[in-house]
Amino acid sequence: MENERLKKQIEFLKEIDKLKQVFRQTLLMDGTRHENDAEHSWHLAMMALLLSEYASEKIDISHVIKMVLVHDIVEIDAGDTFVYDEKGYEDKAEREKKAAERIFNILPEDQADEIKALWEEFEERKTEDAKFASALDRLQPIIHNYYTNGHSWKQHGVKSYQVLERNKIVSEIAPELWQFINDILEDAINKGYIER
Amino acid sequence: MENERLKKQIEFLKEIDKLKQVFRQTLLMDGTRHENDAEHSWHLAMMALLLSEYASEKIDISHVIKMVLVHDIVEIDAGDTFVYDEKGYEDKAEREKKAAERIFNILPEDQADEIKALWEEFEERKTEDAKFASALDRLQPIIHNYYTNGHSWKQHGVKSYQVLERNKIVSEIAPELWQFINDILEDAINKGYIER
Repeated sequence: MENERLKKQIEFLKEIDKLKQVFRQTLLMDGTRHENDAEHSWHLAMMALLLSEYASEKIDISHVIKMVLVHDIVEIDAGDTFVYDEKGYEDKAEREKKAAERIFNILPEDQADEIKALWEEFEERKTEDAKFASALDRLQPIIHNYYTNGHSWKQHGVKSYQVLERNKIVSEIAPELWQFINDILEDAINKGYIER
Repeated sequence: MENERLKKQIEFLKEIDKLKQVFRQTLLMDGTRHENDAEHSWHLAMMALLLSEYASEKIDISHVIKMVLVHDIVEIDAGDTFVYDEKGYEDKAEREKKAAERIFNILPEDQADEIKALWEEFEERKTEDAKFASALDRLQPIIHNYYTNGHSWKQHGVKSYQVLERNKIVSEIAPELWQFINDILEDAINKGYIER
């Protein structure tokens, strides 16, 4: 193939196929297997498309969608770090930065910069778009855990107060989604999926 | 939960988790297992994000991304129909229409209409955005087949001329991607992945 630019783009698209083999702590909602990062990213994009009305600040939903599509690509090298794994979080940023350098730079320079910028925006959680993307990324595993009878909460001994503490940022970003989190956690406690 | 609207939205987001269990003919590029529709949709969205420069007409890339995110949801009920399966194609439209009615109508009415419109636009392939989305949907399995030594081409006895015939619409929509398809098919013939 003579088109060097397209060659790099296809090489990148081939590389990110590996995201379909990076598994998360959460199970699919039918409980049959762990969820992978690629399908998780798709699910988040669908959440962005459907739940944008709950953002308390004005957001650009197309930009949020782009951010969630790319937010986990670094995990091809860095792996998935469980949100309640304090030790794993120590070197998470460093591992992911190194991964971003390798993976995004497969692309032509202008696109490497574009994708890296989307990823950094998500990680820094400063813009309203990034905050909303992050809120969805917090909400999604809670729903999965609820529908799988608390699978990864039980497995890791996570308590309800920890889920609330870890996700309290949602209260400002999307108050109705925060209310929803509180409601299903209360229900999960009553059903024995998680301890208070 | 008192918020009836959010309840419907969450119910829909739960329903579409099933797309992660609808398997396609294509293998992952590492050849270890079949690809599912959810991760395929994510991969297409990434292709849209990165390959829009090859569209011969002006397109709205954010709209293309939304279309590819929802384009396969009907397969939760209707199943994946292999592109070279002529018999399967006979009642494909009918099966998918029925699926769209059931699944999209889980959403609040305004959003059911929005998602249905995106899906119908993709299916009708009349707008430039839909044509480009469709071109990517044709290109992606060709790349997967190439990198898995022609797995589903061999399995179904698909010939190179059939791939070209089936995908010739790409030639007008994105000439450089059409050239790329021709180049890798030629290479695939030389490597014995597919017969001419």
